[in-house]
Amino acid sequence: MNKPAHTKHTTQTCIEACSRCHQVCLQTAMDYCLKTGGKHVEAEHFRLMMNCAEICQTSANFQLSRSHFQHRLCEVCAGICEACAADCEKIGGMDECVEACRNCAESCREMASARH
Amino acid sequence: MNKPAHTKHTTQTCIEACSRCHQVCLQTAMDYCLKTGGKHVEAEHFRLMMNCAEICQTSANFQLSRSHFQHRLCEVCAGICEACAADCEKIGGMDECVEACRNCAESCREMASARH
Amino acid sequence: MNKPAHTKHTTQTCIEACSRCHQVCLQTAMDYCLKTGGKHVEAEHFRLMMNCAEICQTSANFQLSRSHFQHRLCEVCAGICEACAADCEKIGGMDECVEACRNCAESCREMASARH
Amino acid sequence: MNKPAHTKHTTQTCIEACSRCHQVCLQTAMDYCLKTGGKHVEAEHFRLMMNCAEICQTSANFQLSRSHFQHRLCEVCAGICEACAADCEKIGGMDECVEACRNCAESCREMASARH
Repeated sequence: MNKPAHTKHTTQTCIEACSRCHQVCLQTAMDYCLKTGGKHVEAEHFRLMMNCAEICQTSANFQLSRSHFQHRLCEVCAGICEACAADCEKIGGMDECVEACRNCAESCREMASARH
Repeated sequence: MNKPAHTKHTTQTCIEACSRCHQVCLQTAMDYCLKTGGKHVEAEHFRLMMNCAEICQTSANFQLSRSHFQHRLCEVCAGICEACAADCEKIGGMDECVEACRNCAESCREMASARH
Repeated sequence: MNKPAHTKHTTQTCIEACSRCHQVCLQTAMDYCLKTGGKHVEAEHFRLMMNCAEICQTSANFQLSRSHFQHRLCEVCAGICEACAADCEKIGGMDECVEACRNCAESCREMASARH
Repeated sequence: MNKPAHTKHTTQTCIEACSRCHQVCLQTAMDYCLKTGGKHVEAEHFRLMMNCAEICQTSANFQLSRSHFQHRLCEVCAGICEACAADCEKIGGMDECVEACRNCAESCREMASARH
């Protein structure tokens, strides 16, 4: 039925989800985690938070610039967001981050699959 | 009277203004400007759009990470946003960009001056 | 024989290749392409140059931060570099860019496969 | 007399200094500091390392894109690099970082003053 692979609406929703996840992860890592210390600054966890913030930024930028590769970025971004959500949930005290990561992962999965 | 230099509210507002300006500038440059051509892809204009997008991203990231240097970044960001708004207004057809740049410049000026 | 999946040397080589490709693509797009105009500022080509510059930056940053996801980023980066090299070669006049993209793609493929 | 404010050579040297400082700061923070813990992950120090890495990246990108505002970015970058060098020296064990920050600060100061 000549349906477009994904609507402009889907892309805008995903950009917003990536932007929010970038902000929450960066702010949580650089403020809450650094102040709290302990498990929150263990290498594995902290790297994951920072990597999640960065891939969300890059994924948003690829969608904003209408890149042919935006679906690839969304796919990678979804995987990192899911790993970050799971790690934040395990450590605890970062509910806002878990929610932002899950929401972004879901939106990115939708974008990634919309290509086909 | 022991007033804080700037409230948490001001910072959050500025982060949102920077994030929006980043998105609008990047999207306008990489979609509307590239498709329209002519004056929209002249080196001076296009660079300004991309530089504005990048400094807004960096300024937001400095505020998100509670950097001591966030006021310096906001000051530089305000100057670039004002230059970008003026250039977009002169060329025309980019009202959303002009508005996002002006709003971001104003919010960044407030943050920059809040330091003193 | 207990060989590490990839040596520290391989990672450093790939970081350098990504960093160089980022620099050459960004400089070529924002200077040579904008000044030359014509095919060099057509949306498809220009976006690819800018997307290539950004993914190389992100890929380098993931390796610098020893991310578990560095191989995924290298894989995506390799694909974008190959597309950018082919497009630059077709349009012509960007030999330095073609060479930097090919070199980065090769180095990223090595990193991506080193995981297994 | 017609001497250009700064030669192409100076800019290229500064781009390299910024790129190296970005790499060393990011790698040191995300690997050495996170593994070592203690003072190395205290909020003030860690933020400074990450902020220094980011401003060096942005400063390099502005120079690569021949931005009119590159001197402003270099000026801000120099200040942050100097603060980071001093903090790393005080804490100790990060000689490579101190050297990269000092070298970048010097190169950025030269670029910033070349404008006049």
